[in-house]
Amino acid sequence: MTKLIKKRSKKAGLPPGSLVHIGEKKTDKTKITIIEYDEVHFHEREAKTIEECFPFRDKNRPTVAWINIDGIHQSEILGKLGEGFGLHPLIVEDILNTDQRPKIEDFETYSYLVLKMLYFNAKDGEVASEQVSLILGYNFIISFQEREADIFHVISDRIRTNKGRVRKMGADYLAYCLLDAIVDNYFIIMETLGEKIESLENELVKEPSPEILPAIYNLKRNMILLRRSVWPLREVIGGLGRGGSLQIQESVKIYLKDIHDHTIYIIDTLESFREMVAGMLEIYLSSISNRMNAVIKVLTMIATIFMPLTFIAGIYGMNFKYMPGLEWRWGYPMVLLIMAGIGIAMVYYFRKKRW
Amino acid sequence: MTKLIKKRSKKAGLPPGSLVHIGEKKTDKTKITIIEYDEVHFHEREAKTIEECFPFRDKNRPTVAWINIDGIHQSEILGKLGEGFGLHPLIVEDILNTDQRPKIEDFETYSYLVLKMLYFNAKDGEVASEQVSLILGYNFIISFQEREADIFHVISDRIRTNKGRVRKMGADYLAYCLLDAIVDNYFIIMETLGEKIESLENELVKEPSPEILPAIYNLKRNMILLRRSVWPLREVIGGLGRGGSLQIQESVKIYLKDIHDHTIYIIDTLESFREMVAGMLEIYLSSISNRMNAVIKVLTMIATIFMPLTFIAGIYGMNFKYMPGLEWRWGYPMVLLIMAGIGIAMVYYFRKKRW
Amino acid sequence: MTKLIKKRSKKAGLPPGSLVHIGEKKTDKTKITIIEYDEVHFHEREAKTIEECFPFRDKNRPTVAWINIDGIHQSEILGKLGEGFGLHPLIVEDILNTDQRPKIEDFETYSYLVLKMLYFNAKDGEVASEQVSLILGYNFIISFQEREADIFHVISDRIRTNKGRVRKMGADYLAYCLLDAIVDNYFIIMETLGEKIESLENELVKEPSPEILPAIYNLKRNMILLRRSVWPLREVIGGLGRGGSLQIQESVKIYLKDIHDHTIYIIDTLESFREMVAGMLEIYLSSISNRMNAVIKVLTMIATIFMPLTFIAGIYGMNFKYMPGLEWRWGYPMVLLIMAGIGIAMVYYFRKKRW
Amino acid sequence: MTKLIKKRSKKAGLPPGSLVHIGEKKTDKTKITIIEYDEVHFHEREAKTIEECFPFRDKNRPTVAWINIDGIHQSEILGKLGEGFGLHPLIVEDILNTDQRPKIEDFETYSYLVLKMLYFNAKDGEVASEQVSLILGYNFIISFQEREADIFHVISDRIRTNKGRVRKMGADYLAYCLLDAIVDNYFIIMETLGEKIESLENELVKEPSPEILPAIYNLKRNMILLRRSVWPLREVIGGLGRGGSLQIQESVKIYLKDIHDHTIYIIDTLESFREMVAGMLEIYLSSISNRMNAVIKVLTMIATIFMPLTFIAGIYGMNFKYMPGLEWRWGYPMVLLIMAGIGIAMVYYFRKKRW
Amino acid sequence: MTKLIKKRSKKAGLPPGSLVHIGEKKTDKTKITIIEYDEVHFHEREAKTIEECFPFRDKNRPTVAWINIDGIHQSEILGKLGEGFGLHPLIVEDILNTDQRPKIEDFETYSYLVLKMLYFNAKDGEVASEQVSLILGYNFIISFQEREADIFHVISDRIRTNKGRVRKMGADYLAYCLLDAIVDNYFIIMETLGEKIESLENELVKEPSPEILPAIYNLKRNMILLRRSVWPLREVIGGLGRGGSLQIQESVKIYLKDIHDHTIYIIDTLESFREMVAGMLEIYLSSISNRMNAVIKVLTMIATIFMPLTFIAGIYGMNFKYMPGLEWRWGYPMVLLIMAGIGIAMVYYFRKKRW
Repeated sequence: MTKLIKKRSKKAGLPPGSLVHIGEKKTDKTKITIIEYDEVHFHEREAKTIEECFPFRDKNRPTVAWINIDGIHQSEILGKLGEGFGLHPLIVEDILNTDQRPKIEDFETYSYLVLKMLYFNAKDGEVASEQVSLILGYNFIISFQEREADIFHVISDRIRTNKGRVRKMGADYLAYCLLDAIVDNYFIIMETLGEKIESLENELVKEPSPEILPAIYNLKRNMILLRRSVWPLREVIGGLGRGGSLQIQESVKIYLKDIHDHTIYIIDTLESFREMVAGMLEIYLSSISNRMNAVIKVLTMIATIFMPLTFIAGIYGMNFKYMPGLEWRWGYPMVLLIMAGIGIAMVYYFRKKRW
Repeated sequence: MTKLIKKRSKKAGLPPGSLVHIGEKKTDKTKITIIEYDEVHFHEREAKTIEECFPFRDKNRPTVAWINIDGIHQSEILGKLGEGFGLHPLIVEDILNTDQRPKIEDFETYSYLVLKMLYFNAKDGEVASEQVSLILGYNFIISFQEREADIFHVISDRIRTNKGRVRKMGADYLAYCLLDAIVDNYFIIMETLGEKIESLENELVKEPSPEILPAIYNLKRNMILLRRSVWPLREVIGGLGRGGSLQIQESVKIYLKDIHDHTIYIIDTLESFREMVAGMLEIYLSSISNRMNAVIKVLTMIATIFMPLTFIAGIYGMNFKYMPGLEWRWGYPMVLLIMAGIGIAMVYYFRKKRW
Repeated sequence: MTKLIKKRSKKAGLPPGSLVHIGEKKTDKTKITIIEYDEVHFHEREAKTIEECFPFRDKNRPTVAWINIDGIHQSEILGKLGEGFGLHPLIVEDILNTDQRPKIEDFETYSYLVLKMLYFNAKDGEVASEQVSLILGYNFIISFQEREADIFHVISDRIRTNKGRVRKMGADYLAYCLLDAIVDNYFIIMETLGEKIESLENELVKEPSPEILPAIYNLKRNMILLRRSVWPLREVIGGLGRGGSLQIQESVKIYLKDIHDHTIYIIDTLESFREMVAGMLEIYLSSISNRMNAVIKVLTMIATIFMPLTFIAGIYGMNFKYMPGLEWRWGYPMVLLIMAGIGIAMVYYFRKKRW
Repeated sequence: MTKLIKKRSKKAGLPPGSLVHIGEKKTDKTKITIIEYDEVHFHEREAKTIEECFPFRDKNRPTVAWINIDGIHQSEILGKLGEGFGLHPLIVEDILNTDQRPKIEDFETYSYLVLKMLYFNAKDGEVASEQVSLILGYNFIISFQEREADIFHVISDRIRTNKGRVRKMGADYLAYCLLDAIVDNYFIIMETLGEKIESLENELVKEPSPEILPAIYNLKRNMILLRRSVWPLREVIGGLGRGGSLQIQESVKIYLKDIHDHTIYIIDTLESFREMVAGMLEIYLSSISNRMNAVIKVLTMIATIFMPLTFIAGIYGMNFKYMPGLEWRWGYPMVLLIMAGIGIAMVYYFRKKRW
Repeated sequence: MTKLIKKRSKKAGLPPGSLVHIGEKKTDKTKITIIEYDEVHFHEREAKTIEECFPFRDKNRPTVAWINIDGIHQSEILGKLGEGFGLHPLIVEDILNTDQRPKIEDFETYSYLVLKMLYFNAKDGEVASEQVSLILGYNFIISFQEREADIFHVISDRIRTNKGRVRKMGADYLAYCLLDAIVDNYFIIMETLGEKIESLENELVKEPSPEILPAIYNLKRNMILLRRSVWPLREVIGGLGRGGSLQIQESVKIYLKDIHDHTIYIIDTLESFREMVAGMLEIYLSSISNRMNAVIKVLTMIATIFMPLTFIAGIYGMNFKYMPGLEWRWGYPMVLLIMAGIGIAMVYYFRKKRW
C-alpha cells in the first residue's frame, strides 16, 4: 500500500535549511539534461557537471533553457545548483523533501513550484505519487523529478520537432506545458477510478459479494490520496494565474486559467465519486440486512412448522400405559391428518403475512 | 447508465489547442442554421459552408444574427469558424470537448459560455446531459449543440412569429432566452425527481420492499449528476449578471437575475431532495431492523414454548423399566395438563412482556 | 403530503414575462381591500375594479394606503395592476408563480418581497405554506395572498382601532408589521414542532415502538420544508434592514433588525431540532439492536439448556436390546438427576456471564 | 427536561413593543439593588421604588453605579425604568422575553447585551439557563436577572472589599467583570460534561450496558443546549471588543479579548466533546453487533452439535420391527461412540474456524 | 487517559489577573537558564534569582538573550518576572494557566505566544501535551515550559556550537527555531499515528477481531486532541508571518511561511487520517454483519435439514398400535432412504441458492 506519510525522523533536530533527502531513492545516478531553444535554434545535451548549467541563469540570454534533473537524492549536487542559481536554502531543502504539499513560492528572480505526478502502481493497483519541482526563471526552467518519466518526453519531443506554439514562446509557456502534461495525466487516473466505480455499481445491482468491501475501501483510500494532491494543486495553479509570479506573461495566463478549470473539474468529479462510493456502501449494508432478514425468515418458518409437529409426535411416543387413542384403529392416520392440517395452516399463515 | 466521466485519452500528449472531439458522435452531419432579424426584418436560412457566417462578425451590422450549429464532431469546420470569428484556440478546443464543467470566459469582442442541457434518457430513465456552447458577440450569437434539440426550436419560432420582446432587443436578450429555455428544462427534471421521491415515500410508509434500495441509489446517482451541472451554472449566470461580460446591456441584467434566482431555487430544492432521500434510507434501514426483530421474536417464542414441552415428552418416551407414573391411570392426562400449563404460562409471560 | 415542488410545465416554452398562474387555485374570486390612513383619518373599502387602486400610486398623497389582494389566480387582473403601478413584467410573473424562493427585488419606485406564510395543515398535520407578495412603495403597500388569511386581519384591526405606533408611521412601518406577523406565526410552528420532539423523546425513553419511525420521518420532512422558507427569509429581511430598499426609513431599521434576530433565532432552534431528531434516530436504532440482542439471548439460553437434555432423553428412548442402565432400579432417577444437574449448570453459567 | 423553546403564544397578535413577560416566573417580588462606587467611596442600598434609580442616568456623575434587578416578570416596573433611562421600547420588550438568542445592540447612550447564565439543574441534572440582560451606560450598568443568583454576589463583594482593579476603573470594566463571571461559570459546566464523558468512556471500555444510550442522548442534548448559548456569546463579546459600543474604553478591550479567547476555547472543547460522543456511539453500536455475533455463534454451535445427534437417537427410537443393529450386543455402545465422534468432530471444526 | 479539560474551579470567583497555577505540577523547582549570544560571543548560566534576568529587557543591548524557565507552578516568581519585563497582568495569568488554546497576543514591546508541545505518553500510549509560552522581545526571548524537555536542548546546543544561521541572526530567528522544533516534533506524532493506521488496515484486511474497536476509538481520541493543538497553531504562525508582530523582521518571514506550510500539511494529513479511520470503521461494521450472516446461514441450514428428519423419526417412534409399515420388512430401510433423499435435496437446494 502507498504510505500515508514518509519518514522525516532523520531530519529531526537538524538546523533549518539542512539538505537531507526525504523519501525513497528511485534512481541510481542523477541525470542532467539541458535543452536550449528559440524559434530557430534547438540544442540538446546531457550535462556532466552541474556547473554547466550556471550560464543559463543569465537574464539577457535570448534563448529559453530547460534543465531537467532526474534523481534528487544527491543532496550535494542540489546544494551546488542552489548556490549557482541563487536559490534560497529553504527551497533547496524543499526540493530534496519528497513528502510535500503542492505549493508555489514566489521570489524576485524565480518562482518555485512543487507538484505531484500521479500514476497507478503496477504492483498493487494503488495510486502512487512522485514529486516534481519546478524552478521558473525569466528565460529558464529547472525541473526536478524523482526518476526519469515518460510524461516530460512528450514535451521535449514537441520542442525538438517544433510542434505547437512552444518554440515561439517563452519559459512561462514551457512551464504551462509541463503543468498541462501533469494535469492531463490526472484525467487518466480519474477515468480508471470511474471505471472501477461503474464496475462495482454493476456488481452491486446484480449480486453483491463480501469482496466488494475491500474494493470499496481501496477506492476510498485512493480517492483520499488523490484529493491530497489535487486540492492544493488548484491553489497553486490559481495562484500562478492570478499573477503573483512575475515570470508569467499576460498572454500565458489564459492558458493557466484553462488548467485551473481542469483541476476544478477534477475536484468536482472526485467529490461526485466520493458521494457515489458512500452511497454504494450504504446500499450494500442495507442489502446485507435484507438478506439476513430473508435467511432468518426461512429459519423461523422451518422451526415454526416442525417444532409443534415434532412435539405431537413426541407425545405419542411416550410410554404411558393408559393413553387413549393408541389402541384406536384410526389413531395413527388421525394424528397424521392433524399434523398435516397444522403444517398447512402454518404455511398458509406465512403466505398471508407475505414472508 | 450515464457515464461518470468521458474518455479523454486520445488527447493525452497532444499540444494545447489541438482540435480533437471528445465525446460520443450524436449526429451525422453538421447543420448550420442562420437566423437574422431586427424589429421589422426576419431572415432564416441553412448555410452550406461555414464561410457564409463570417459577415455577421461585423460589429456595425444593424441586425441580430443567431448562428446555430448542430453537431460538433467535425473539428475542421469548427477550426475554420474559430479563425473566421477570431476565437482563441483554447475556446475552439473547449467547444469540441463535450465533457466540461459549465463556465464562462469573457473576451473583449465575445463571451464564451458552456452549459449542460439535461434530459431523461428514454432507455434507462437516467438523467443524461448534452453540452451547449454559446459565443455571444455584440450583435450575434453562435450556439453549438451536440445534436438538433427541440428546446431551441421554441425560441426560433418565437422570433419567427415575433412573440414576446425578443425581436425588439439585442443579442444579449437572445442569449437570455436560450439560457432561460435551458433552465426551464431543469424544472421538468426536478418535477420528475420530486414525483419519484414522493412515490418512494408512499411505498416506504405502506410496505417497503427491498426493491426500494436500487431505486434510492438511482435517485442519488441522478441527483449527483444533476448537481454537477447546476452548481457551476449558478456561478456562470451570476457572473454574467454581475457584469463581467461587456456584451450584456444593463436592461437585460434584471432578466439574468431572474434566471439566477431560478438556479438558486433548483439548488435549494435539490438539497432538500438529498436530505429527504437520506432520511428515507435511514428509515428504511430502521424498518428492516424492526422487522427482523419481529421475526426473531416469533422464532424465540416458538422455541421457548415447544422445546421444554418436547423435552418432557422425551422424558416419558425413555425406555427405563422402573419409571414411576407410567403405570398410573392418570399419568398421561396429568402430563398433558402440566404441558398445557407450561405452554399457557409461557404465552402469558410473553404477553406481559409485550412481545 | 405537502408537495415538494409545484408543476410548472404549463409554462415551459412561453416567452419570459408571460402571465401564468402556477399553483393551486385556493379561492374563487379575487377580493381587493383598500385601507387608507394617517394619524387622524382612517378609510376602508372593498374595491370593485382594479382601477380604483391606481390613484394611490401618487407619491405626493399624504396618507398611507394598504391594498390587500386575496386570490391571485386571475392573471388578467394582476396584469392590469402591474401596468397601473408600473411594475416590471417579471415581477408580475413572479407574483403569479406561487412556487418561489423568498426574495427581495429593489426598484427605484418600489421594492418587491415574496415570502412564505406557514401553517399546520388541519388534514394531515403537515407544515403547508402559502405565498405572500408585497409591493412596497413610498406611501403604499400592495399585499398579495393566495386566500384570505386571519394573520393580516390582526394588523388591519390594529390600524382601525389605532393601537400601537402604526398610524403614526409610514408604509415602511406597515411593511414591518406585516413581516412581524408572518415571523411571529413561525414561532407557533416552532413551538408545535418542539412539543412533538419532546413527546417523542419521552416515548423514546420509556418504551419506543416502531411507530416512532414514521413520526420521526414526518418531523424531518416538515423541518426540511420549514428550512426552505426560513433561510432565504433571513436574507430577505437582512437585505431590507441593510438598506438596499430606498422605501425604508432609518427609524424603521431597528425594527427590521429585531425581526432579523427572530429569524436567526428560528434558524438556530431549527438546527438544534435537526440535531436532536438525528440523535433520537441513532438512539432508537441502537435500542432496537439492544432489544434484538436480548431476544436472541433468550433463544440461545432456551436452546442451550433444552437441546442437550432432549438429546439425553432421546438416547434413553432408543430401542436397543442391550442398553445398560435401563433395567437398573435407579436408572430413571439417576438420569433425571443428571439432567437437572446439566440444566442448573447451564443456568449458573449464563448467570455468571451476566446474560 | 429543559424546554427546547418557550411559549410565546400569549404575545401573538400584539403590536410590536408590547411589554409581555415570556418565560417562567422564578421569584415573587422584583428586588432592586443599587451599588455606587469610585476609588474611595462605596455606597450600597436596596431601592424601594424604581424612580430612585433615575438620577444615575446623569452622564456627569463622577461615580459608577450598578443597578441590579432580580425578577423581571413585573412588566410595569420595567416599563417605567425604560422610560426613565430612555430605552427603546423594543429593548424593554427584549428584557422581558427570557427566550432570546444572546445578542448585543448598540445605541448612542447605552448598549444592550443579553446573555445566558448556565447551571446544572439540581432536579434532573440537565443544563438549564437563565437570562441576564445588561444595559451599559457611560457610568452606570443595569443588570436584569430572572432571580437572585450567587454569581454576581462575588462581584459585589469584590467591589465592597476593594479587591482587584474594579474600583479604579469605569462601568465598562464592571461589565467585563460580570461577563467574565458568567463565562467562568461555563467552564464549570464544561468540566462536569468532560467528567461525564470520561466516565462513559471508562464504562464503554470495560463493559458497556444499554443504560449508556440514554446517558449519551442526555449528553448530546445538553451539548446542543450549551451550544445555542455559547456560539452567539462569542459573536456578542467579539462585537464588544471590536469596538461597536462607544461605552467601551480602549484599556478594557484587552480584557474583552481575553474572554473572547475563553469562549473560543469553550467552543473548541465543545466540538471535541461532540466528536467524542459521536465516536462513542459508533463504538457502542459496533460492540452490540459484536456481542450479538458471539451469542448467535453459541446458538449455532449448540444446534449444529445436538441436532444431528438427536436425529440419530430419534432413528433408533423408531418402532420398526425389522431394524438391523438393535438386537446386536454392541449396537448401543457403537451408536454412542459414533455420536461422541460426531460431537468431537464438530467441536474440532469450530475450534479450527476460531469460533 | 489524557484529560479532556483541566480543573479551573480553584480560580472561579477570583478577580481577573489573579495569578493561580492551573494544571499539574510537573517539576519541583523552577529552573531559570540564561543564554546570551551574538555572532562572536556566547555566554550561558543558571540564574539564582529572577531579578538577574531584568537587565536583558534593555532594548539597546547588542546581544540576543534567551531566558528559559522550566517549571511554572511558582506564581510569585512569574509575578515578579511580569513586573520586571512590564508584561500585562492577563499575560502572566495566561502563562500560569496550562489549559489554553494556542494563541498569539501582540503588544508594542513584546509578543506573547502560547503553544502545545505534543508527545506520546509512555504509560498509556496516548498523545499528551505540555504548554510552552514564549515572550518575544526585540532582542530577547523568554520561554516557559512545564518541565525541562529535550526538544529545546537541541537548539541551545546549536547556538553553543554555532551550527546553522542562528548566531548570525536576531531573537526573531531564535523564535522561529523554537517553533520549528515544536512543529518538527508533530511530524513524529503523525508518523506514529500513520503507522498505527496502516497496521490496523492490515489487520482489517486479514482477519478483523473485536479488539480493533478500542484501537480505533483510541486513534480517534488522539486525533481529536491533536487537532485541538494544530488548528489554532496554524492561525498563530500564520498571524506571526503576516506581520502583526513588530518583533519579526522581513528576512525571517520566509522561514515562518515554511513552518506555516508544515502546519497546513499536518492538518491535511490529519484530515486524511480521519477519513481513513472513519472508512475503516464502516468496513469493520459491514464485515461484522457479513460474518453474522454467514453464521446464521449455517444455523438455518442445520435446522432446515435436521428438523424435518427428526420429525419423521419422531413419527415412527409413536406408539400407536396400528401403524402401517412398522411391520413391513423394508420399512426401516425405506424410511432411511426417504430421509437421505430429503437431506440430499436440501443440500442441493442450498448449493443452488449459493449459500
